[in-house]
Amino acid sequence: VILTVCLNPAIDITYRVPRLCHGATHRVEQVRARAGGKATNVARVLRQIGLAAELIAPVGGHTGEEFLADLRSAGLPVHPVPLRQATRRSVTVFDGAVATVLNEPGPLVSPAEWSAIRAATAARLRAGDIVVLAGSAPPGCPPNAHGQLVGLAREQGARAIVDAQGGQLSAALPARPTVVKANREEVAAALGRELGSMAEVMDAAAELQGHGAVAALVSCGAEGLVAVTSEGRWRAPVPERISGNPTGAGDALTAALAAGLYHGLPWSRILLDAVTVSAAAVATAVAGEIDMATRDRLRAAARVREV
Amino acid sequence: VILTVCLNPAIDITYRVPRLCHGATHRVEQVRARAGGKATNVARVLRQIGLAAELIAPVGGHTGEEFLADLRSAGLPVHPVPLRQATRRSVTVFDGAVATVLNEPGPLVSPAEWSAIRAATAARLRAGDIVVLAGSAPPGCPPNAHGQLVGLAREQGARAIVDAQGGQLSAALPARPTVVKANREEVAAALGRELGSMAEVMDAAAELQGHGAVAALVSCGAEGLVAVTSEGRWRAPVPERISGNPTGAGDALTAALAAGLYHGLPWSRILLDAVTVSAAAVATAVAGEIDMATRDRLRAAARVREV
Repeated sequence: VILTVCLNPAIDITYRVPRLCHGATHRVEQVRARAGGKATNVARVLRQIGLAAELIAPVGGHTGEEFLADLRSAGLPVHPVPLRQATRRSVTVFDGAVATVLNEPGPLVSPAEWSAIRAATAARLRAGDIVVLAGSAPPGCPPNAHGQLVGLAREQGARAIVDAQGGQLSAALPARPTVVKANREEVAAALGRELGSMAEVMDAAAELQGHGAVAALVSCGAEGLVAVTSEGRWRAPVPERISGNPTGAGDALTAALAAGLYHGLPWSRILLDAVTVSAAAVATAVAGEIDMATRDRLRAAARVREV
Repeated sequence: VILTVCLNPAIDITYRVPRLCHGATHRVEQVRARAGGKATNVARVLRQIGLAAELIAPVGGHTGEEFLADLRSAGLPVHPVPLRQATRRSVTVFDGAVATVLNEPGPLVSPAEWSAIRAATAARLRAGDIVVLAGSAPPGCPPNAHGQLVGLAREQGARAIVDAQGGQLSAALPARPTVVKANREEVAAALGRELGSMAEVMDAAAELQGHGAVAALVSCGAEGLVAVTSEGRWRAPVPERISGNPTGAGDALTAALAAGLYHGLPWSRILLDAVTVSAAAVATAVAGEIDMATRDRLRAAARVREV
């Protein structure tokens, strides 16, 4: 199976207002609330492209109940790990084309709760499984939380994909994840230097690989993907400029990676899927969803180039 | 008993951020979530000044569960009327001294649900009770929702206090509430004219009484209260300028009114309590709470003047 671990789930609340004015009282015109968090979006896209994914998520409070109910109503199997503190909310206020985002801090995870998350993950993993570790870790988790879960996956003979940033990204590498994926800004921050040219991005991907990742993939927005793998170095440009909502494009990319590993595809094909699925996510208004027509159109035009 | 009816309850969420920037992503520093809505604040203040109030509230969804749990943990008895749609949220973003507010629309109340709210209210009312009808009515409620509940109160020999605005305020008057209370801006909007001087405010209060209210009370912020009652016309100025958070001052005022009627106090004394309790609410950061020391200090200095 494909297991996605959502360490820091959220209720994603989206408000539409005519205009956000500092200091004013607004009547919200439209409200949307749904289960969110990067790994949740990955599971949603996997389901949309025909693969069943199971989700492990530490949840607490009424927002945690809301998170579980939303996933269950979407038919996504979820294994909750109970937390004492409540699942966070994330509020996005849209006025016209501009989004203002307010992210609550995650719940404080106790050492016992972190052990329970580890145990729940270990209990679900089987040899040959793919485990996706995507997103941030809430307060109280160890600084190498994703790395520890990569270790559990390797012990079971499962493969791990890490989509993280900051300290969690760096700390996951020595555990030798099968693939590490990040965007250009995240990699630049982790390595502490600017990444101007695509050649510099390629060098950075190689450096992530050097730190332990089996394969490293860096997404560069409209410029497409760069990957350093056991089969070579690749570039996968976006074949067509897609305008829309880039939120969730990275999660769609991670879903395509997981699907490609699951099906045992060669890297050239995995990257082609990844770049097209990611771009197809930009064409939808909601994170965790791709536009299938866009995906199919781009797939016909996309080319992956060995460098 | 004192019964408060909260037709449009909310989860009041308060975020503290260093600075709210349009289009930016913010890490929220502090989150507070509690059961809100005007009638909820009234019940909280009543409890603080030593009177038990019961709350009737239509609630739905996970936010409704959160609303009930918060009131129960505060020890406030609540009689929920189940709704199909979810209880709304209200998000206040504080950066420094400035509050930006996002109010979700309330849930759509069906005709059957409105009947259930009426029935729940009627079932709890006894002769001599005080019923407080405070706040807005969610979509789907009749335009004279508060007025209908005033009618139920009168049928049972109970007294009704209405703290509403707009169409709900105007439509409640013919049902002859025992007291109608609104602030100067709300009364100006309901009557369709500006209220410049305190004499004009007094005339406006008399007009509300002429439309059916037994007594009418208009709050004028730092300028205090104006009241037209069966015992005469009164002005109750605020004895001391209080700086702080005026949110919830009107609800504290309504609580003091309910307490005064409950104890059978004369109007001069009720208005003295009302103006001091209301000002004492400004001295606290949270709506639904008063600063007792401020109340006691102001009460010694306050004077109510018959006009």
